[in-house]
Amino acid sequence: MVKVAIIGGSGYTGLELLRLLARHPGVTVTAATSREYDGKPVSAVFPALAGICPLNFSWPDPARLAGMAELFFVALPHQTAMAVIPALLEAGARVVDLSADFRFRDRAVYEDWYQEHTAPHLLAEAVYGLPELYREAIAAARLVGNPGCYPTSVILGLAPLLREGLIEPHGIIADCKSGVSGAGRGVSLSTLYCEVNDGFRAYKVAGHRHTPEMEQELSRLAEEPLQITFTPHLVPMNRGILATIYATPKKPAAEGEILAAYQRFYHQEPFIRLCPPDTLPNTAAVRGSNFCDLAIRLDKRTLRLIIVSAIDNLTRGASGQAVHNMNLMLGFPETQGLEIVPWTP
Amino acid sequence: MVKVAIIGGSGYTGLELLRLLARHPGVTVTAATSREYDGKPVSAVFPALAGICPLNFSWPDPARLAGMAELFFVALPHQTAMAVIPALLEAGARVVDLSADFRFRDRAVYEDWYQEHTAPHLLAEAVYGLPELYREAIAAARLVGNPGCYPTSVILGLAPLLREGLIEPHGIIADCKSGVSGAGRGVSLSTLYCEVNDGFRAYKVAGHRHTPEMEQELSRLAEEPLQITFTPHLVPMNRGILATIYATPKKPAAEGEILAAYQRFYHQEPFIRLCPPDTLPNTAAVRGSNFCDLAIRLDKRTLRLIIVSAIDNLTRGASGQAVHNMNLMLGFPETQGLEIVPWTP
Amino acid sequence: MVKVAIIGGSGYTGLELLRLLARHPGVTVTAATSREYDGKPVSAVFPALAGICPLNFSWPDPARLAGMAELFFVALPHQTAMAVIPALLEAGARVVDLSADFRFRDRAVYEDWYQEHTAPHLLAEAVYGLPELYREAIAAARLVGNPGCYPTSVILGLAPLLREGLIEPHGIIADCKSGVSGAGRGVSLSTLYCEVNDGFRAYKVAGHRHTPEMEQELSRLAEEPLQITFTPHLVPMNRGILATIYATPKKPAAEGEILAAYQRFYHQEPFIRLCPPDTLPNTAAVRGSNFCDLAIRLDKRTLRLIIVSAIDNLTRGASGQAVHNMNLMLGFPETQGLEIVPWTP
Amino acid sequence: MVKVAIIGGSGYTGLELLRLLARHPGVTVTAATSREYDGKPVSAVFPALAGICPLNFSWPDPARLAGMAELFFVALPHQTAMAVIPALLEAGARVVDLSADFRFRDRAVYEDWYQEHTAPHLLAEAVYGLPELYREAIAAARLVGNPGCYPTSVILGLAPLLREGLIEPHGIIADCKSGVSGAGRGVSLSTLYCEVNDGFRAYKVAGHRHTPEMEQELSRLAEEPLQITFTPHLVPMNRGILATIYATPKKPAAEGEILAAYQRFYHQEPFIRLCPPDTLPNTAAVRGSNFCDLAIRLDKRTLRLIIVSAIDNLTRGASGQAVHNMNLMLGFPETQGLEIVPWTP
Repeated sequence: MVKVAIIGGSGYTGLELLRLLARHPGVTVTAATSREYDGKPVSAVFPALAGICPLNFSWPDPARLAGMAELFFVALPHQTAMAVIPALLEAGARVVDLSADFRFRDRAVYEDWYQEHTAPHLLAEAVYGLPELYREAIAAARLVGNPGCYPTSVILGLAPLLREGLIEPHGIIADCKSGVSGAGRGVSLSTLYCEVNDGFRAYKVAGHRHTPEMEQELSRLAEEPLQITFTPHLVPMNRGILATIYATPKKPAAEGEILAAYQRFYHQEPFIRLCPPDTLPNTAAVRGSNFCDLAIRLDKRTLRLIIVSAIDNLTRGASGQAVHNMNLMLGFPETQGLEIVPWTP
Repeated sequence: MVKVAIIGGSGYTGLELLRLLARHPGVTVTAATSREYDGKPVSAVFPALAGICPLNFSWPDPARLAGMAELFFVALPHQTAMAVIPALLEAGARVVDLSADFRFRDRAVYEDWYQEHTAPHLLAEAVYGLPELYREAIAAARLVGNPGCYPTSVILGLAPLLREGLIEPHGIIADCKSGVSGAGRGVSLSTLYCEVNDGFRAYKVAGHRHTPEMEQELSRLAEEPLQITFTPHLVPMNRGILATIYATPKKPAAEGEILAAYQRFYHQEPFIRLCPPDTLPNTAAVRGSNFCDLAIRLDKRTLRLIIVSAIDNLTRGASGQAVHNMNLMLGFPETQGLEIVPWTP
Repeated sequence: MVKVAIIGGSGYTGLELLRLLARHPGVTVTAATSREYDGKPVSAVFPALAGICPLNFSWPDPARLAGMAELFFVALPHQTAMAVIPALLEAGARVVDLSADFRFRDRAVYEDWYQEHTAPHLLAEAVYGLPELYREAIAAARLVGNPGCYPTSVILGLAPLLREGLIEPHGIIADCKSGVSGAGRGVSLSTLYCEVNDGFRAYKVAGHRHTPEMEQELSRLAEEPLQITFTPHLVPMNRGILATIYATPKKPAAEGEILAAYQRFYHQEPFIRLCPPDTLPNTAAVRGSNFCDLAIRLDKRTLRLIIVSAIDNLTRGASGQAVHNMNLMLGFPETQGLEIVPWTP
Repeated sequence: MVKVAIIGGSGYTGLELLRLLARHPGVTVTAATSREYDGKPVSAVFPALAGICPLNFSWPDPARLAGMAELFFVALPHQTAMAVIPALLEAGARVVDLSADFRFRDRAVYEDWYQEHTAPHLLAEAVYGLPELYREAIAAARLVGNPGCYPTSVILGLAPLLREGLIEPHGIIADCKSGVSGAGRGVSLSTLYCEVNDGFRAYKVAGHRHTPEMEQELSRLAEEPLQITFTPHLVPMNRGILATIYATPKKPAAEGEILAAYQRFYHQEPFIRLCPPDTLPNTAAVRGSNFCDLAIRLDKRTLRLIIVSAIDNLTRGASGQAVHNMNLMLGFPETQGLEIVPWTP
């Protein structure tokens, strides 16, 4: 059993890691840290894990942690993450970072959208942890920047089209809708039950920090720099992201030809499901799983392509993808610990 | 007190009419029809109306109904509506039709998207019941085609821009999200609680019948024919539509200039609220009311305009707008019976 | 127009008062206080009230407030409420207090369950603001202690039976279920959307502070001291309380006889609705209104009476009842401003 | 791999069986029947199962089915179930029946509450499938009557107290609250999203068919006939039952003594979790799992015991328990295929 640990274990992505790793046959979780709950049993904080997770939360003491695990999941807020990761790497461990701190190749882009980067020397070696695009590099990486939830849904939706040059790289619109767990477990007025239930709204229009992350990866796929319009929305549900993506085909194409590009690109991917012709993705059909469900429609009247992508923001959009990355890094079968039947109903 | 009646009173739009008219000081509801509940007290079908609505549902017998009201609300499915409306008009009544049957000026468009029109002679006189656009014509009309819920949200969002020629008429995208009551009160697997709750999905991508209705009105505003891309989605909530609309400005403009166009267009409108600069519409802030809340953002990076519009699909998107039309037709103050504080929380 | 003001206007009961009073034809709200939002427009905090409430929140400065209103609604937490109320009364105003501070006749009971009472000299004159029981006293009161939400649902459910001596006063069980707005608008982990949605739980079993309040009023009705078992639960919904109450009839009785007692007790009450025989209360059928819906069933096998009572916790359980009390105190028709059709669907 | 089949696979309990059995290492599902979906891929009906369940639904033809499996799960409505089960047994198969048809030892009780029993000769051999009570008998059984969801929650909550004679057997009240999936996947007005969302209600007060099933098992535990008062309620959530049970201790007891009885009774049970002292069960903490979480409180003022029990109605209350029974019958480890971490958040 390989020893792994979770730095920042008391948020929703930490909880999701605990859930997934508890049933992973190849690893043992040796520590889960939390400043707030230091010393408390994990199961006292998360009663769902009673009888499943025997750990107590511990203080994130780098010196003590260094030797405790071969691989660390860092589920801290950005900025805090890059403060602890260098020491873990120096101690010889490998890291999957769920924050935004190591997702960017270009320090300037990160600093434009976030803040000063305090470990820029690691950016060159960090690998963007989207297995469908960077499988081999992830396997060899010391440091993986686990993708954001919205970028995962959008990049997976567009990758085959941009890679094959089937759509105009400019003018893409990603209208995305997320469940509330994406906002995290921190207390705030805007995520109180009564503030969210039976309502629907957009937020951070034309200003969300996941925009440059999408652009970095989409530009690489297109082999030219591109910008996109991205609008996030909040859905009254716990989990799930649905991305509705609008693009313009470079030349007239039938829906079938477009679909064939997806089949070529994803035909061996264990976590991508292309919906049958009469079905559209539903976040409820991927809930709790690592799947990304995709459907493509051509609006014959306006000649616009509409790509619909559904993921679970906590699993595929965060912790499930992190475990997939861990499987690649540690040489486990890719789907190990992730063979979850989506939660339905 | 003016006598009015509701043909098709047992669906959600019928219920919403009963709710609003029960507190309208100028009218009395003399009949509400329902084949299914014929003879049953309205309050037995809708316990919320106990002590409020003293009517029994009655059979939709045209001969009996003709003399019972000066104005009829027809809340029947399309096709059924146009079968009963001619007789009501011939008997001297006026009609607000909540179905799609009298929303189209061009019979061919209706027949392309719905079915054969059985009362085409009435299309020329029917007025599209969006008060902000057709206030005077509605006041004089014998027959009003009450707008669809999605078209209301989209047309109100785009009218100032198209009227003033500020955006390209081509390439508009309307990504709309609706609560479940939009699907009506008919039983179906797809609207069962467990099929909807904690999920989110698109439906009828590139094929929803509200598309040509939007195009008809947007083309008139633009003074040239246009086509739009429209994607509806289902939100796990009872009421509300949020429309996120993407358009391209004809020439570079500041957000403030765009906003000024909205202020000019809507400055005397009682049911339009332009959000202050730091606020975005939320369906929860208009729930149960006749308001349409609007906000505009310019994505300075992609030079795309993003217009966000929120309405209650049953009130502003159906029955509230129908009552507004009735107020215009009967000479009541426009807001009478509609001074509802949005339901919050 | 009578001037009224709201001390503590930024919680859910404050918001509900603002909603109801905005449409009350006999009063003007001259001030709504909030330390947190001092100086901000009410509509900036509650966008639903844009175009409806023109006030800015103001600092709760007793000296300034004293002359601004004839009647004050105090929607502060308990303990804070009794700190400000004496000054308001001394300045000649009347007060409806929505906290627990003036609901108890017996200072010792209050101090057992809450904390030291700092204005005990006012307890004797304060009237428990349940109009069905204390209509005349409320009309004459200077200070009304507005009932708690759970007690309202339980006392209204049991009053006819205890008053007529039809049930054993001992052994009553009240199993109550509340929407989340009952927990208030303060931020806390336990009321985050993802902590509540798709879950159901009991809380404060055998220890909730509404227990002695129920016992005080039920004992008076029974004319002997009694104790009850009360269990509150949290329902994933915004509004509503359903109380399921178990009692033992003193002697064998038919359901019809029991129901007759309710009809005698409540036959002139505008806000009590006895459900027809085949209907049970649903919180959705009273949402947003001041109604209390009641049904009674006799379990013929176990000879247990089951009383089901439904209210909206924010309206009938707090601010609607407060407006009802205001109507009594100021001589308005009892239902003025409260003729709300329940929000459905 | 042992071959098993599901008769009636298209409801929610069928879907839940498909979910659980898809990941069970010891069995293969050879058939899932559905008259409605005959011939359609399971994944076309349940997109969540795409890539997981390769079956097509098939017609429930007894002759064809007989040889296809060693053990059958029958997830049909009562009455239909007992029509098909005798033939399966005669063909040499074993059966776990999820309907009510084989839960009753006394034919007369069944016929009082349901209808005429058409296979009464099997009642004597059928075993009530609650593993904590009948582990050995289940292992040897040919026919298991899988318990109802409400009875599971209530019997597990009371078993230790009745077995040890710690409470009065008479006067027990079970106030139970269920998620909507308990009503099944059949279309009906009362389970439409908008009819359920943001509401809460009791139903079938003093008349639900799970009452005699609880009484049968509780009477056996108490070793004397008893009757209970049982009130079911509908919660706006997909899954979960919370039972709040009221009982009277036979003699004064401390909470700790009571809790010790539970520890004795359940100390080796893999699916029972006794909550720590400061925690109460939440259906969200058992969602998707086979756990039953229990807490006990003594109301020191009224000397009433309050037992709170939480299960997932589809897993522990139906299909998970059925798989547990299958594990016992086929000699698998009891928890095999059921090591699910509860779905949270």
